[in-house]
Amino acid sequence: MKLQLSTWQEVDAYLKRSKGVVVPLGSTEQHGPNGLIGTDALCATAIAEGMAERAGALVAPAITIGAAQFNLGFAGTISARSSTLIALIEDYVRSLARHGFERLYFVNGHGGNVAPAKAAFQDLYGEQSLAGGKTRLRLRIRSWWELPTVDRMRRELFGDWEGMHATPSEVAITQALYPALIAAGPAEPPRRLTPEFLRDHAGDNHYDAATHRRDFPDGRVGSHSALASAAHGARLLDAAIADAVVDYQALLEEK
Amino acid sequence: MKLQLSTWQEVDAYLKRSKGVVVPLGSTEQHGPNGLIGTDALCATAIAEGMAERAGALVAPAITIGAAQFNLGFAGTISARSSTLIALIEDYVRSLARHGFERLYFVNGHGGNVAPAKAAFQDLYGEQSLAGGKTRLRLRIRSWWELPTVDRMRRELFGDWEGMHATPSEVAITQALYPALIAAGPAEPPRRLTPEFLRDHAGDNHYDAATHRRDFPDGRVGSHSALASAAHGARLLDAAIADAVVDYQALLEEK
Amino acid sequence: MKLQLSTWQEVDAYLKRSKGVVVPLGSTEQHGPNGLIGTDALCATAIAEGMAERAGALVAPAITIGAAQFNLGFAGTISARSSTLIALIEDYVRSLARHGFERLYFVNGHGGNVAPAKAAFQDLYGEQSLAGGKTRLRLRIRSWWELPTVDRMRRELFGDWEGMHATPSEVAITQALYPALIAAGPAEPPRRLTPEFLRDHAGDNHYDAATHRRDFPDGRVGSHSALASAAHGARLLDAAIADAVVDYQALLEEK
Amino acid sequence: MKLQLSTWQEVDAYLKRSKGVVVPLGSTEQHGPNGLIGTDALCATAIAEGMAERAGALVAPAITIGAAQFNLGFAGTISARSSTLIALIEDYVRSLARHGFERLYFVNGHGGNVAPAKAAFQDLYGEQSLAGGKTRLRLRIRSWWELPTVDRMRRELFGDWEGMHATPSEVAITQALYPALIAAGPAEPPRRLTPEFLRDHAGDNHYDAATHRRDFPDGRVGSHSALASAAHGARLLDAAIADAVVDYQALLEEK
Amino acid sequence: MKLQLSTWQEVDAYLKRSKGVVVPLGSTEQHGPNGLIGTDALCATAIAEGMAERAGALVAPAITIGAAQFNLGFAGTISARSSTLIALIEDYVRSLARHGFERLYFVNGHGGNVAPAKAAFQDLYGEQSLAGGKTRLRLRIRSWWELPTVDRMRRELFGDWEGMHATPSEVAITQALYPALIAAGPAEPPRRLTPEFLRDHAGDNHYDAATHRRDFPDGRVGSHSALASAAHGARLLDAAIADAVVDYQALLEEK
Amino acid sequence: MKLQLSTWQEVDAYLKRSKGVVVPLGSTEQHGPNGLIGTDALCATAIAEGMAERAGALVAPAITIGAAQFNLGFAGTISARSSTLIALIEDYVRSLARHGFERLYFVNGHGGNVAPAKAAFQDLYGEQSLAGGKTRLRLRIRSWWELPTVDRMRRELFGDWEGMHATPSEVAITQALYPALIAAGPAEPPRRLTPEFLRDHAGDNHYDAATHRRDFPDGRVGSHSALASAAHGARLLDAAIADAVVDYQALLEEK
Repeated sequence: MKLQLSTWQEVDAYLKRSKGVVVPLGSTEQHGPNGLIGTDALCATAIAEGMAERAGALVAPAITIGAAQFNLGFAGTISARSSTLIALIEDYVRSLARHGFERLYFVNGHGGNVAPAKAAFQDLYGEQSLAGGKTRLRLRIRSWWELPTVDRMRRELFGDWEGMHATPSEVAITQALYPALIAAGPAEPPRRLTPEFLRDHAGDNHYDAATHRRDFPDGRVGSHSALASAAHGARLLDAAIADAVVDYQALLEEK
Repeated sequence: MKLQLSTWQEVDAYLKRSKGVVVPLGSTEQHGPNGLIGTDALCATAIAEGMAERAGALVAPAITIGAAQFNLGFAGTISARSSTLIALIEDYVRSLARHGFERLYFVNGHGGNVAPAKAAFQDLYGEQSLAGGKTRLRLRIRSWWELPTVDRMRRELFGDWEGMHATPSEVAITQALYPALIAAGPAEPPRRLTPEFLRDHAGDNHYDAATHRRDFPDGRVGSHSALASAAHGARLLDAAIADAVVDYQALLEEK
Repeated sequence: MKLQLSTWQEVDAYLKRSKGVVVPLGSTEQHGPNGLIGTDALCATAIAEGMAERAGALVAPAITIGAAQFNLGFAGTISARSSTLIALIEDYVRSLARHGFERLYFVNGHGGNVAPAKAAFQDLYGEQSLAGGKTRLRLRIRSWWELPTVDRMRRELFGDWEGMHATPSEVAITQALYPALIAAGPAEPPRRLTPEFLRDHAGDNHYDAATHRRDFPDGRVGSHSALASAAHGARLLDAAIADAVVDYQALLEEK
Repeated sequence: MKLQLSTWQEVDAYLKRSKGVVVPLGSTEQHGPNGLIGTDALCATAIAEGMAERAGALVAPAITIGAAQFNLGFAGTISARSSTLIALIEDYVRSLARHGFERLYFVNGHGGNVAPAKAAFQDLYGEQSLAGGKTRLRLRIRSWWELPTVDRMRRELFGDWEGMHATPSEVAITQALYPALIAAGPAEPPRRLTPEFLRDHAGDNHYDAATHRRDFPDGRVGSHSALASAAHGARLLDAAIADAVVDYQALLEEK
Repeated sequence: MKLQLSTWQEVDAYLKRSKGVVVPLGSTEQHGPNGLIGTDALCATAIAEGMAERAGALVAPAITIGAAQFNLGFAGTISARSSTLIALIEDYVRSLARHGFERLYFVNGHGGNVAPAKAAFQDLYGEQSLAGGKTRLRLRIRSWWELPTVDRMRRELFGDWEGMHATPSEVAITQALYPALIAAGPAEPPRRLTPEFLRDHAGDNHYDAATHRRDFPDGRVGSHSALASAAHGARLLDAAIADAVVDYQALLEEK
Repeated sequence: MKLQLSTWQEVDAYLKRSKGVVVPLGSTEQHGPNGLIGTDALCATAIAEGMAERAGALVAPAITIGAAQFNLGFAGTISARSSTLIALIEDYVRSLARHGFERLYFVNGHGGNVAPAKAAFQDLYGEQSLAGGKTRLRLRIRSWWELPTVDRMRRELFGDWEGMHATPSEVAITQALYPALIAAGPAEPPRRLTPEFLRDHAGDNHYDAATHRRDFPDGRVGSHSALASAAHGARLLDAAIADAVVDYQALLEEK
């Protein structure tokens, strides 16, 4: 069930049977020589909609702009400041909690969103903590690539060439979604990076945009995007949805 | 051309031929007994994508959460504070200007967004104005229903029953987009409202959510949504795109 | 009754008979070759004080600094950021509501204030809307030139030469107030502007200060200030007060 | 010269002969049983306008709302948060500096404004300090009662009964300005307070509004307002203007 | 009792016997040719810990970064914006009040902190004042040099050479604490400054960093740091603790 | 070299040989039945000071208040909002960068600080990224327990009983620092928690304070604090310093 394609009465009815809602979190940023700028939102939305189909979850509209300042050296990237993203997440949470939603599950497609989202969650809980009472509100952010089956699968499929950005995994999922749109990636692999380098220069650790482009001139961060295929993408997407459903159910059942 | 479905190199190429970009602005809020919660974003996005087709414009991802606190009395509404929306628009503008975009055209689908958007625009220009130089940046927000042909057409089609929210016009456009999704609206028209009442209680003049629901119990604000039809919607959408293209071209050509 | 010239006991007594208060909103900005920098506050204050005389309303001190970044290219202009103006309006509203005021009527003299004021109103209501209860608080901003009799009168008196800024209407009102202070405006009319141009470059649609000065080199925006006279001003002021009193009474009586 | 009653060309001309400007700072708050709610702004404005007459200074519009939360227990008080006042002062300073003003002299009429004003000044300088350059901008806030002649005079006239709020000095100045408006204060002196108590509960040290009203039930803070007279007020006003002119000239001449 | 070296159960037990807590406020900034960058926090902490010993007070961790933008021209200075310091103080107060603390005594070692601290206090009380109830919360900031015995003593010991920054008093206290660390100051006294100059250029009145360094090239502000000695410091410290204990007890006993 | 115990000239000299500085990040929060409230700052500071000894690094004053809202249910916890912590880190970075520092290494002692710190870093870089240039500024946060040798050691020493908060590792380090201060922890181990539970309810994933206390009634989060000893602490501290020195040197050498 998609919030945007529902009426308010349908949401009223939904709330009688569930207090959960899924919010996709994306980013609008370069994804290497052949990846789409909207990759992160596309992946997160596809997983969330899969959760809607399999688990009857309600899906809120995606947050499509993430914290991506390091990619501003590549045309088309739109980056939200942390404070903007925190404020927007707060508005989602406060609005949805107003209607009685108690479990918000953020399916995340962009590593740079984790820090702002967690900061937002802590500040939202903090208001309650200062006021002194207890809340049934539970907020969870889960990046799809850390879901256990997905994590194993992408290691098996791509090994070290999975890398950290414009990964074959995420490109593959968008290929599964938009097979006609994605060009073949460059056959040439990117510069091979050490795990230590990746730890400190990727995920949610980045420097400024000019330095980032110097270090990763075509936008790939240790990832060999050309290894992606629509078939791989379909498998990854299916695994992500299955894992996320389990995770979401657990959140719904928490005391 | 959709930003989310492009690569960064494609955006680089686009910038060689145009400095313009279109941003749809929507809202996630009740739209009466049969309108979709996502109506505002759906309409704005459809018009923006029509502009992409006819005028080759680049379309950025929609801002789907608007300033809609007055609808929080209806389940499913998600409202952004003005400050959040201002911050998000600033991030769009600063990011896009970083790449060389000079003309940002916001196609707006929600009356409540006008005030925050204009506040954001003035503050963005204000930084430049204090610094002292001149900028080629031009920001415009245009609500699709005020485009001249559309405005005439909706008056002709629905007269006073157009009303102000969950209007037959916007419901009609979503019917044209998702014919299977929209139920027939209630045959019963809403309470008839004076123009003065509409002026001060609708558009971007609203009170709190509980009062709003008291005044408009099923979410329609003087609008007889059931007058909508997919055929009307197709005509309105076509007119909106045509008018918006003209308006956008004028913005591109401004000195 | 002027708040600034009252004691707290007098305000206590006033609150026993009325929950209404009038707040003039102005701006401190250039008003063309012969208009006063304080024009907007002077007009709004004069109307508010007229309301005090005729309807017994309490008048709060004017907000004299408005959102006027586009006029920073002219010496003497002081511009508030939107966020400042929003915060200040919030402080007025929260303070006055603390004492039991329920109806705040903002008489506005500056187009650029409308967006920040409406953003402030929505955020103030929004706190209530998230909390869930209902409020008797009603906030209205009315720009004096849109009051019906005034609007007709200025069209009759000045036609298209009314323009959008440093208008003969507002200059006339200040002439009625300070006949000795206003020089004769330049006999030369300003560049004639199309309605479309005015719509997108005036009111609350402006670009940066340097561009604004380029477009309107002596500060007049399509307005032929020299058509103003103290006699016209007196009539306009009288009409504005009469209309505003009606509007204010309606606000007081709203449920 | 009053900014609000000038044209932009007159300000241009003024800037050729001076880089200084005076800003009155007031507050809108109870001033005891017979003092006016606007007392602080009225006093500061009268002094500033005296400076204009005697020293040719330009006077900007007063900031009439101060930080006065402790007086919210008395009807009519409007209090600005510190952050609002800081933002507003920043907007004044940045706007005026944009035109070439280098010396801003804030004549202050309210003790509670000192902390926010100094916080604003430091943050404005701080931007420059981080950027690294030097600025000719000099900001000074001076509360009129601490000017040396005034301070001596009020001690001589009223001794300990000067107190800290709704002082006979400030009431006297408003009597000099509006002789017909001020009622005789209560013959009964207020509770006598120790200097230590005054130090920690007045000036810019206050608790919440309910506690403040408990401690000072009629709004006088150790001050015997009834000792005021228009004659005293005229002398105090004259001394304040004379002292302030000297102080302002020194600020203009600073390197 | 030091909060940082206690367990939560020990704090629970403390709250059964006292609702008071002491917070040292410092700054991290140059202190002249031989003073330590941490002087302000070191002095405030030593006094607070003395209060803990003599009066059984609980000492919270020091706020070591103050508002010190004017010293950014000297290496090692770290300055907090006013807004940061205000926010941090708010977090201290709200957290401690959550546990039942009612009296917070801020021992201050840096003049520049007074304005932000008072602004924070007023905004904290202001929330209560708008809500309408009364609070037992009492916040006091006391700069150690204004405590009566200390103030007399430093005048006696150093006369005018006490100056305003990198004073012999504060250097002496750090010498008493860290005798081995402090070099002998320059025998040469600093430029002698008039009281008027000190009033407007020191304490909490400063210009930008480059101007500050121009005016005070070695960091001393009218103070002859070399007059300091560990013996003086021990006496000053002892007096400060004694005075502060009296002041703190009075705060605890306030109604 | 400790910043607080240095003079500005010594910092000038340091900057000639190094552009690096170490900032300890702590928290002020309950650490179980026998752990100290200041544990996180004590550990981070001890490691940073060890780095100063072994690698000649300059140590800035610790940030002792972290984001710890979930522990507000235990007396003595002081929690900073994310926005406060972000602002404070920005002030550290901007001030230190002003002096020429290029490499800031934050030694972190509290999991809840990671998200705000990373959000701050991205926003600081983001300003540069929008401006377009490149910066030599490099910011790194490293939680001491994730340093490779430390991580292995604590697993070996305590296995699963390391848990997530009030861990035997951190208690052990404080024992090594303050052997007399730490009581023996309860012999009774805490409730055993699954890795999945720890992942979603600890580190930087927490709910509100009341729920947190319900789930972890004595403050231990899966950690058997009584396994700590001063000897273990000394080994862990030594390993942490050694690892951190290597990491810091690498940061200094980055291009």
